[in-house]
Amino acid sequence: MERMEALRRSFAKEGFEGFLICDEVNLLYFTGFPGAASLFVPRNDEGIIYVYGVNYEQAKTEGEGFKIELLKRREDYTERIVAQLKSSKIKKLAIDALSLEGYRKLQGSLKEETKIEMREKIVWELRKSKDEKELKFMREAAQLTCRGMGVAYKVIKPGIREYEVAAEIEYAMRKDGSGGTAFETIVASGVRSAFPHGGCTDRRIRRGELVVIDIGATYNYYCSDMTRTVVAGKPSAKQARIYEIVKQAQEEAFQSVKSKAEAREVDGVARKVIGEAGYEEYFVHGLGHGVGLQVHEPPSLNQESREQLDVRNTVTIEPGVYFIGFGGIRIEDTVLVHKGKGERLTEGYYTPTIMR
Amino acid sequence: MERMEALRRSFAKEGFEGFLICDEVNLLYFTGFPGAASLFVPRNDEGIIYVYGVNYEQAKTEGEGFKIELLKRREDYTERIVAQLKSSKIKKLAIDALSLEGYRKLQGSLKEETKIEMREKIVWELRKSKDEKELKFMREAAQLTCRGMGVAYKVIKPGIREYEVAAEIEYAMRKDGSGGTAFETIVASGVRSAFPHGGCTDRRIRRGELVVIDIGATYNYYCSDMTRTVVAGKPSAKQARIYEIVKQAQEEAFQSVKSKAEAREVDGVARKVIGEAGYEEYFVHGLGHGVGLQVHEPPSLNQESREQLDVRNTVTIEPGVYFIGFGGIRIEDTVLVHKGKGERLTEGYYTPTIMR
Repeated sequence: MERMEALRRSFAKEGFEGFLICDEVNLLYFTGFPGAASLFVPRNDEGIIYVYGVNYEQAKTEGEGFKIELLKRREDYTERIVAQLKSSKIKKLAIDALSLEGYRKLQGSLKEETKIEMREKIVWELRKSKDEKELKFMREAAQLTCRGMGVAYKVIKPGIREYEVAAEIEYAMRKDGSGGTAFETIVASGVRSAFPHGGCTDRRIRRGELVVIDIGATYNYYCSDMTRTVVAGKPSAKQARIYEIVKQAQEEAFQSVKSKAEAREVDGVARKVIGEAGYEEYFVHGLGHGVGLQVHEPPSLNQESREQLDVRNTVTIEPGVYFIGFGGIRIEDTVLVHKGKGERLTEGYYTPTIMR
Repeated sequence: MERMEALRRSFAKEGFEGFLICDEVNLLYFTGFPGAASLFVPRNDEGIIYVYGVNYEQAKTEGEGFKIELLKRREDYTERIVAQLKSSKIKKLAIDALSLEGYRKLQGSLKEETKIEMREKIVWELRKSKDEKELKFMREAAQLTCRGMGVAYKVIKPGIREYEVAAEIEYAMRKDGSGGTAFETIVASGVRSAFPHGGCTDRRIRRGELVVIDIGATYNYYCSDMTRTVVAGKPSAKQARIYEIVKQAQEEAFQSVKSKAEAREVDGVARKVIGEAGYEEYFVHGLGHGVGLQVHEPPSLNQESREQLDVRNTVTIEPGVYFIGFGGIRIEDTVLVHKGKGERLTEGYYTPTIMR
């Protein structure tokens, strides 16, 4: 209910009389359960959850503090909302997300009576700042992810297939309480490690090859995100040298994380370390992104970002360099922003060497 | 490339000169790899994949038969596409999906020169009909899912937690080659089994309780979907009686599956069986949905559906009844539509009894 109050304050400040939440994840954020079709938040009254029969009983059980309205099987919820807006005499409504078709339908039904504007940003400003409950879940997800990474270090050996490694990691996280994976697990070996989004295949890992492991557990719908790069066997001199550069970039960028830091500048710290080593053109993505109910959320940390970090933001710090034919190296942690510093929620395993 | 040709034929028939694919899954369907930002398909020339640097090398390796255009870091791909449309002199363009903002930007840049229309349906008509390669993947995903269900029947016993069951199922599917889970695994026990979308929690399964297990493996991005309901121990007379009704409804609906069958009527077959037993109001969802690259796709099988089944459609048949306080029972298979009949891709385990 604090989130609802914060939303009311935010949209009232911008002159809106109500907010219509349609995005699935935003619905989860405000209602606390998955499955609402829509949520209408008037300025001075309780929120109304619209839900179809299939999720109605769950909504009644888990949607405490809301008015629950059951939608009929063949009912388009837009019509119900239009009726509600008219009876509430809402003149100016903010909405988080709507398809082109949804927008046309809603605006068409409302005609001139209610002005609607898209204000996804209002919700993101709230979601970026994790409350205590969210931080507890984020920490739990991060710990589960670290345990998964420990399993990766245990099972990787020459001859094992990429997806077999993924199976062991995911099983360990799940058994310890993970709700699933925050994204498609990446175990990308050899030449495939040069693809930042390489997924995993039935390819067998060979001795001396780079392996990028990018994994994330979830806890109560909250995501975590962690990457390590290893070599099955002893790294070559070149592998070890580039590994140290990426590790240095990750550490220095992490050290620059604090509230009020410009996201662009934190990215710049890592980019400078990699650039001075002569590899800037191989760092083909941004330094990081926010993590929460979604694995990719605001704020973005890259050269184009205009965002400032703030306390309670949770972001990834993940420099990486990728060489076609040679492979890729990425090191990533999920980091919580505090006043004068960052705190790694994922950590450990900062070595590429797996001897067996 | 056959899919590209089919798309060209479809949009040309409706008078379009090009098709712009923006939806992530549609991009995977046509390009064969995940990570393209957009795909432009002109009527008489090769398709152009637009891709950011992070996925560029993967696109060059995996995007055979396409022209690959690298987007710069700060580049908005809309502008590149607008330039392409202007140089190709495209007057009428179809698009699969676009956000309200994306639509406004594109239409704003194109002005009167190019007319754009949303035609998601053209792509769905193609995607609904699975080709041989897709059916191979669907069959593989279904077999992995059946093996996962076998594990559920092996591990469920009084005292085990819902998520522990999920962990064992997912591990078995993954080790055998599943790419992940097609959706959030449901292991919903006791009163929670009455929530059709109950997920799984740390709740311990108790003797005699209903447990709904709804799972799906993936194979090469193709999904499968299967549900069974069990009782840890011997079902009560009431549980067994309702189980038989749902099983009968599932079997009769399955028997009515064939090309040219009205989706609404197939739903009606199951609804009639459940209705005659007096439980129609507890069957709170549609009978099923299409499955493919997404776990929920067209065609929908419910009372509102106006679709007709066709050969090569893959759909779920999943009647279920849910009683608050007592629990829920659902039985679901993924079914392939043939000329005069259906074929279960998932099957087996049609008993609620798990004795241990």
